[in-house]
Amino acid sequence: MTTDPVDLTARLVRCPSVTPEDAGALDVLDRALSAAGFATTRVDRGGIRNLYARWGEGRQGRRFGFNGHTDVVPVGDPADWTHPPFGAEIHDGWLYGRGAVDMKSGVAAFAAAAIDFVTDTPPDGAVILAITGDEEGDARDGTRALLDWMDQAGERMDVCLVGEPTCPERMGEMIKIGRRGSLSAFVTATGVQGHAAYPHLAANPLPVLVRLLDRLASTPLDDGTEHFDPSTLAITTVDVGNPATNVIPATARATVNIRYNDAHSGASLTAWLDEQARAASRGTDVALSVTVRNSGESFVTPPGPFSDLVAQAVRAETGATPVLSTSGGTSDARFVRKHCPVVEFGLVGQRMHAVDERVPVADVHALKAVYTRILQGYLA
Amino acid sequence: MTTDPVDLTARLVRCPSVTPEDAGALDVLDRALSAAGFATTRVDRGGIRNLYARWGEGRQGRRFGFNGHTDVVPVGDPADWTHPPFGAEIHDGWLYGRGAVDMKSGVAAFAAAAIDFVTDTPPDGAVILAITGDEEGDARDGTRALLDWMDQAGERMDVCLVGEPTCPERMGEMIKIGRRGSLSAFVTATGVQGHAAYPHLAANPLPVLVRLLDRLASTPLDDGTEHFDPSTLAITTVDVGNPATNVIPATARATVNIRYNDAHSGASLTAWLDEQARAASRGTDVALSVTVRNSGESFVTPPGPFSDLVAQAVRAETGATPVLSTSGGTSDARFVRKHCPVVEFGLVGQRMHAVDERVPVADVHALKAVYTRILQGYLA
Ligand SMILES: [Zn+2]
Ligand SMILES: [Zn+2]
Repeated sequence: MTTDPVDLTARLVRCPSVTPEDAGALDVLDRALSAAGFATTRVDRGGIRNLYARWGEGRQGRRFGFNGHTDVVPVGDPADWTHPPFGAEIHDGWLYGRGAVDMKSGVAAFAAAAIDFVTDTPPDGAVILAITGDEEGDARDGTRALLDWMDQAGERMDVCLVGEPTCPERMGEMIKIGRRGSLSAFVTATGVQGHAAYPHLAANPLPVLVRLLDRLASTPLDDGTEHFDPSTLAITTVDVGNPATNVIPATARATVNIRYNDAHSGASLTAWLDEQARAASRGTDVALSVTVRNSGESFVTPPGPFSDLVAQAVRAETGATPVLSTSGGTSDARFVRKHCPVVEFGLVGQRMHAVDERVPVADVHALKAVYTRILQGYLA
Repeated sequence: MTTDPVDLTARLVRCPSVTPEDAGALDVLDRALSAAGFATTRVDRGGIRNLYARWGEGRQGRRFGFNGHTDVVPVGDPADWTHPPFGAEIHDGWLYGRGAVDMKSGVAAFAAAAIDFVTDTPPDGAVILAITGDEEGDARDGTRALLDWMDQAGERMDVCLVGEPTCPERMGEMIKIGRRGSLSAFVTATGVQGHAAYPHLAANPLPVLVRLLDRLASTPLDDGTEHFDPSTLAITTVDVGNPATNVIPATARATVNIRYNDAHSGASLTAWLDEQARAASRGTDVALSVTVRNSGESFVTPPGPFSDLVAQAVRAETGATPVLSTSGGTSDARFVRKHCPVVEFGLVGQRMHAVDERVPVADVHALKAVYTRILQGYLA
């Protein structure tokens, strides 16, 4: 068989599946996979639609998994697009549309690779696709729901490849073997309101808060580790909402976001933030409180047979020697890594989430070829 | 004559003259002053009502002025008051109501003193009352309108006493001979929006802004001067309004309010703020802009015959030896001081602008007595 990954991408792009809408995207995949002998299961939770597909019922060999998402971010004003965002039109070798890069093409490429592989050279093992409709949203009922269901159903993957875009500029240049952790800290500074002409009668929370924030932003968290870039901290907002220039406010709030490597954990960073807050407020009449929301610990699948296999396939099909990286934002790999070793490889991510999101048709074919080689290497 | 300043205060309090409403307050004064032979002129501007009253037409002696306001701040929820905020009820020696302290009692005391003085011992000079309905508002069309009109009409005061509350805790303890300047600076930090996971691709305005603010709040402006306390700086708000913890914002704003003494001017502080902003943003991709709104320069009427006269009158009537101070917020004295030497003396200001604003009846009588002594000393 030669399932066309570009045609499959186009059919997915034409479904306006802006999170949490599915808009028929998973139906497209369900039909194609079912026709090739995959057993499919709809794992819906919290209003989100997810698809679990497995080929190889009863086979004893290794189980290879793919993970990806069919939901997309909003298109903004469609008038800003030179081609309709759900049109999947092809011009000059580019397929245009929301999700063309992130990541309907990735899902189409691994689905097409999986269909052709099990059809042409049925392996001894299993091929599993865990596809979610909630990666761009809060991700609570997406890949996590699939993994929860797999645990209950006794379904296992031995390794998993996440098909997110991973290449900064050129196809094939980067594989992700881990991700930094992400943590948001919500800081509230509470003092005593007063008149700006009588600051000694008030306790202004703002000098204490800006001192804390300056220290947090000025302190390098680390110099990087074996597999990770240095951790970063970004102040993302500070808010008071006091329109009166003659009033000292009682309360001020700030949020910082930390992307952290394996030199830290959510717990160690929480302790550090608490200590910094104590230090900044010491000797003042201002109370600083820090609430932490940890979106995911850092993780890494150390270089080994699985990443070697992916790297060789990338090199063979693209000519590029990929670096093994842990850079960038979070992905559903942060959930999958609790289930099995996970590696990520996909397209050039530059145009994701942007107006006129588009993918070179040639790259989608190359991506399918890479995924096919990986399946052959792992299962054949 | 013995005009009762408490009765006059009560009649003023019963007019709900929340800025910019006059609610008949100036009519009460106009009638009382006209009946005593004052020539009154309504100086209305920009929807604000003001009253100019002068006794002594054609007389050659010195011209003594009083300045005050009949407008008041809002009462909040009347249900929070133990007595109606516009009721002027007297309980246990206290007169209750909005404006009881700030400053219908002050206006009533100087009007009663002026009426009785010119009636009982007609002086060779003039007694002028410049009373505004726009001190608690933006003060654009209040005392400034009165002074503008006086300039055009050739009307002059040789000295002026502003009857604002000046005593922190006990009647008679403080005279104000000047005021600090007040300046607000609006800081905008502009960078480049981006994703919190890729801070090197963004230019976060917040680290630069909080560094500037920390430096501003940590730098003493001076140690005080001969007649002034140290200048103060208060950060009053910081605002971004970014709800997305994974987004680095493009813009952040902050406001600082500076109360400054005669070691500074609006121009010198503007230059200092600009230099601090340049220093904080140097070497970054963030632009800091500072817009300054100067509400009034600092000023002082150096201790001399006028303040001596006021201090002697206060000592004689209250038994307290008043300190000559320049502390506190701004008042309309900042406008009057361009016209003539100005000193401020009035009641205990503790309960001004608060729920259950109230004044000891005895203090209103004492205040009238002080003002009477000042008139006698200056004009008799
Ligand atoms: Zn994605
Ligand atoms: Zn006042």
